[in-house]
Amino acid sequence: MADDLAKMDATAQAELVRSGAVSPRELVEAAIERVEKLNPQLNAVIRPRYEKARAEADAARLPGGRLAGVPFLLKDLFCVHAGDEIHSGCKALKAAQYTAPHSTYLAEKFRSAGLITIGQTNTPEFGFATTTEPEAYGPTRNPWNTNHSTGGSSGGSAAAVAARIVPVAHANDGGGSIRIPASACGLVGLKPSRGRLSLGPDYGEAWAGCIAEGVVCLSVRDAATILDATTGPMPGDPYAAPACEGSFAEAAQREPGSLRIGLMTRRPGNQDALHPECVAAAENAAKLLESLGHRVEAAYPEALDEQWGVPFGTIVLAHSARTAEDVADALGREVGPGDFERYTWDLMNRGRSIRVTEYIAALEWLERWERRLAAWWADGFDLLLTATLSAPPPPLGQLCSAAADPDEVYRRVIDLIPYTPVANVTGQPGISLPLHWSEDGLPVGVHLMPAYGREDILLSVAAQLEQAQPWIEKLPPVCA
Amino acid sequence: MADDLAKMDATAQAELVRSGAVSPRELVEAAIERVEKLNPQLNAVIRPRYEKARAEADAARLPGGRLAGVPFLLKDLFCVHAGDEIHSGCKALKAAQYTAPHSTYLAEKFRSAGLITIGQTNTPEFGFATTTEPEAYGPTRNPWNTNHSTGGSSGGSAAAVAARIVPVAHANDGGGSIRIPASACGLVGLKPSRGRLSLGPDYGEAWAGCIAEGVVCLSVRDAATILDATTGPMPGDPYAAPACEGSFAEAAQREPGSLRIGLMTRRPGNQDALHPECVAAAENAAKLLESLGHRVEAAYPEALDEQWGVPFGTIVLAHSARTAEDVADALGREVGPGDFERYTWDLMNRGRSIRVTEYIAALEWLERWERRLAAWWADGFDLLLTATLSAPPPPLGQLCSAAADPDEVYRRVIDLIPYTPVANVTGQPGISLPLHWSEDGLPVGVHLMPAYGREDILLSVAAQLEQAQPWIEKLPPVCA
Repeated sequence: MADDLAKMDATAQAELVRSGAVSPRELVEAAIERVEKLNPQLNAVIRPRYEKARAEADAARLPGGRLAGVPFLLKDLFCVHAGDEIHSGCKALKAAQYTAPHSTYLAEKFRSAGLITIGQTNTPEFGFATTTEPEAYGPTRNPWNTNHSTGGSSGGSAAAVAARIVPVAHANDGGGSIRIPASACGLVGLKPSRGRLSLGPDYGEAWAGCIAEGVVCLSVRDAATILDATTGPMPGDPYAAPACEGSFAEAAQREPGSLRIGLMTRRPGNQDALHPECVAAAENAAKLLESLGHRVEAAYPEALDEQWGVPFGTIVLAHSARTAEDVADALGREVGPGDFERYTWDLMNRGRSIRVTEYIAALEWLERWERRLAAWWADGFDLLLTATLSAPPPPLGQLCSAAADPDEVYRRVIDLIPYTPVANVTGQPGISLPLHWSEDGLPVGVHLMPAYGREDILLSVAAQLEQAQPWIEKLPPVCA
Repeated sequence: MADDLAKMDATAQAELVRSGAVSPRELVEAAIERVEKLNPQLNAVIRPRYEKARAEADAARLPGGRLAGVPFLLKDLFCVHAGDEIHSGCKALKAAQYTAPHSTYLAEKFRSAGLITIGQTNTPEFGFATTTEPEAYGPTRNPWNTNHSTGGSSGGSAAAVAARIVPVAHANDGGGSIRIPASACGLVGLKPSRGRLSLGPDYGEAWAGCIAEGVVCLSVRDAATILDATTGPMPGDPYAAPACEGSFAEAAQREPGSLRIGLMTRRPGNQDALHPECVAAAENAAKLLESLGHRVEAAYPEALDEQWGVPFGTIVLAHSARTAEDVADALGREVGPGDFERYTWDLMNRGRSIRVTEYIAALEWLERWERRLAAWWADGFDLLLTATLSAPPPPLGQLCSAAADPDEVYRRVIDLIPYTPVANVTGQPGISLPLHWSEDGLPVGVHLMPAYGREDILLSVAAQLEQAQPWIEKLPPVCA
């Protein structure tokens, strides 16, 4: 069964369950087998949850949620079931075996959809890096080449899905952390609009509205189905994303019509070149989109050339300082440099020195910048097309290492993501699609970004691209 | 004509224009006459805009917007037409004759609705007080008793509407500043949901999402019509309030059905008594609601008894510190204590001493508190019914004075508003309705608060109350 399942997305696996061909328990056991077989090479799953998963599979009432019986993984960050440990990739929280006192709304929604959580996946410390190499749990390895990074911060989830351990896994995104590992591991990674998924009960918004919850998965229909299953405002949410017409699953089955798409193949600001494989990825996607009847122009919002990275950094640094306080609260004691990675502690210290008015001024600058940026979509463009990253997934150790100077780590971490944080700042959705592989076989994602709230357009065109150039049969070497 | 117009809301005045009975120019001239006659007693209008208003009235194409030709006033805070001065009640900005470089989206929407701005109205410095007595422009006087406060911060607008100078005027609300003067002046004051009206182009959100734009007006149908005319997301807005079924004007014409309403007649937290007139206002409204078929219980969200005022204060103080920087930018020089009122400067200094993590922690605390609060509505209550304020409008000079200790001013300013800031923190809409007058003839408003995004329920029940106990014929002494 394992070989069949490897090429099946969550929707297909749920259909097997619904038809009676397999039981939830059988799917869960098969996924556990794959963890046991592949995880020693990948280090994607850092904490198994086998016994709870088996009990949940046995208790699953059928027909349950729309993905009833499908095995699933939760990232070790934010989203958790009550009573499970959650360490956010942090050395001190791992040492303390910190355990969640209650479930997040999202964990409950995943469960209501029928997904069965068989374990938790690796993340860089508090998700602060674009690679998944925490000291607490060691590096996660890319299924396409185990010497390379999975990207981050949802690298554990992405490696597990790419290796077909599970068809879908939880991820979240404050600067690209769903889309970066989706690009690096050859997956679909949709960051939903601001307010689309609740961050409750613990948060109303996170990083001042920049962080979105979601998943990495194998197919556009899975991305749509899971968005349908997890969206909807919860009491006390500070706001909600605007509704789209019909369900997202319907949007993924709808023809997108002829769209106007801007193509950008250089870095914003300095106009430096991207890695040639990233240029090729974006240009090939442009040709494919044209062949599907869309109008693609070399065009992008001029506001992208402004220095938005600086105020965005101010927000992230300030929140990293607050994270240190959260950890102190969780541990019930003062924290210090020994509790965190050197790079993390440096971010926290930089954050602490930010004045409150500097933080508010950074947010206000970004809000005005968002107006200038949004004008491009309002003036008639449907989508911005770019590569997801500036380069294919780098070798492990290249972005982060305990020995490296924190400033240098920060520079390298940011260097990989010229585009993805834009959607975090503005709240727009964005998707990375696996449409390109480098000559040496590494995935290179393509990024599409519509106006705020328009996941419907995004899913329609993504499904069209998937049909034109399917990727699910393409398996990484570790699956061989 | 003046006497007829005094009892006509904006909808009725627009109908006169539409029918050809009066021209926009005639309405504008009549309003200007009323300013000239009444403003010396009230000090509501601080900067006339007569010549521009006359030109706009003459240029009005009919039929224009749904309120075409109706005279209007803008508060001297946030919302402005390009080229008009805007001083935010601030001594330094007044001295510099600071002028707006561009219009706000909302000013354009008011104009598109057909409203003609004949002047600008008084506000306490930056809206930081619950009375309208700025040093820059002097106190605004309450049309019901000119020795008393209009409330604040939209006291200039409220006095002008209460005196029937215009039927509707702009207002905004970060802690109650639409609802407080509506209560104190016998008007309808609706604070819309977070994200319902755009704050662009200058702001995405203000006071971390606590501030909402709106109006004070004479009738529920005007509140609904203006909400319809001014809502709708603008490109670059960070988020949007959820849509309601149909238009707000339709909601104001719809029967609300039988609602479950919680009545609260003491102060949250310490359970101290309100002024007896405020208790009477809320209890009489409860009886009226029961007579209309609603179910009213002595009940309120327990979370209201928590110490939410402290973190809310942290947010407001931090933003006041940022306001000092905005003024410095506007003036192109450093600012100091001589540029602001003593109370304002004290707030700014307190704000500057707040650490960035203290600010973020305050927001996070409030977000978690919002969950506990929202549960009350989610568990079955439709509305929370209270008095709007803790007391009838106090005598002028009682809340703020240049001589008073800033801590004491802060305490008095806050003491008046045990309920209104809740809606600012949570983003819920709230309305103050003129359902009670004290024995000595001062207005005492009643406050209703539904769940987030539910202006439809609020307008339905408010219109029902208005029909049962109409208030528009009740004129203040200055109109005699």
